[in-house]
Amino acid sequence: MRSEEWTKSEKAAARRAFDLALDREYAKLAGEVRDRAGRIAGPDDIWRLHDFLTKRRKEIDEKYDYRYSMLVWVFARLVNEGRIGIADLEGLGEKKLAEIRMMTEIGRR
Amino acid sequence: MRSEEWTKSEKAAARRAFDLALDREYAKLAGEVRDRAGRIAGPDDIWRLHDFLTKRRKEIDEKYDYRYSMLVWVFARLVNEGRIGIADLEGLGEKKLAEIRMMTEIGRR
Repeated sequence: MRSEEWTKSEKAAARRAFDLALDREYAKLAGEVRDRAGRIAGPDDIWRLHDFLTKRRKEIDEKYDYRYSMLVWVFARLVNEGRIGIADLEGLGEKKLAEIRMMTEIGRR
Repeated sequence: MRSEEWTKSEKAAARRAFDLALDREYAKLAGEVRDRAGRIAGPDDIWRLHDFLTKRRKEIDEKYDYRYSMLVWVFARLVNEGRIGIADLEGLGEKKLAEIRMMTEIGRR
C-alpha cells in the first residue's frame, strides 16, 4: 500500500494524534497568552501580544494541515517539536511510521 | 483667530489632554485584555482575543489623530465617550472650546 493511502483505522489513529497535538498546542498558547497579559505594563506590551497572536495564528493554521497527502510530514514535524511522540501514532501503518521516523531522525541531526 | 490655528500654549494644552485620554484608553484596554486572557477556556477564546485586539488597534489608530486640523473633532469625540471632560481641555482658546462644546451637546442628544 502506498503511504498516501489511508485505511479507516489509520484515519482514526491520525485524527486522535492530530487532535492530541492540537490540544497541547492550544494549552501551551493559552498559558503564554495569560502570562503575557499578566505582564502588560504599557501600550507596547498590548501590541506585542497582538503581534504575537497574529504570528501564532498563521503558524498554527499552516502547521495543522489535515490533508492525507500532508499528514506524514505534519506528524514528523509534531514529533520533532516534541508535541507528540512516536507512540502517539500507534495505529498508523508500518510504512508511514518508518517514513515519519526517518524524517524525525533527520530533524534531530 | 481661526480655530485651525494653534498657539504654542494651546498646543501644550492639547498634548496634555490628548495624552491623558490615550493613557486612560490604554489602561482600560490593558484591563480588558487581562480579563479576557484570564477567562480563556479554549481555542475560540484565544482567537476572539486576537480579533478583539485587531479591532481595537485599528480604532485607536483612527481615533487618536493628532493633526491640528482634526484635533477639535478628536477632542469632541473623546468628551462624548467620557474619556476626558471639558475641564481637561483648559488652555484651549474660547472658540475651540465653544466648537467642542457644541459638538458634544449634539452628540448627547
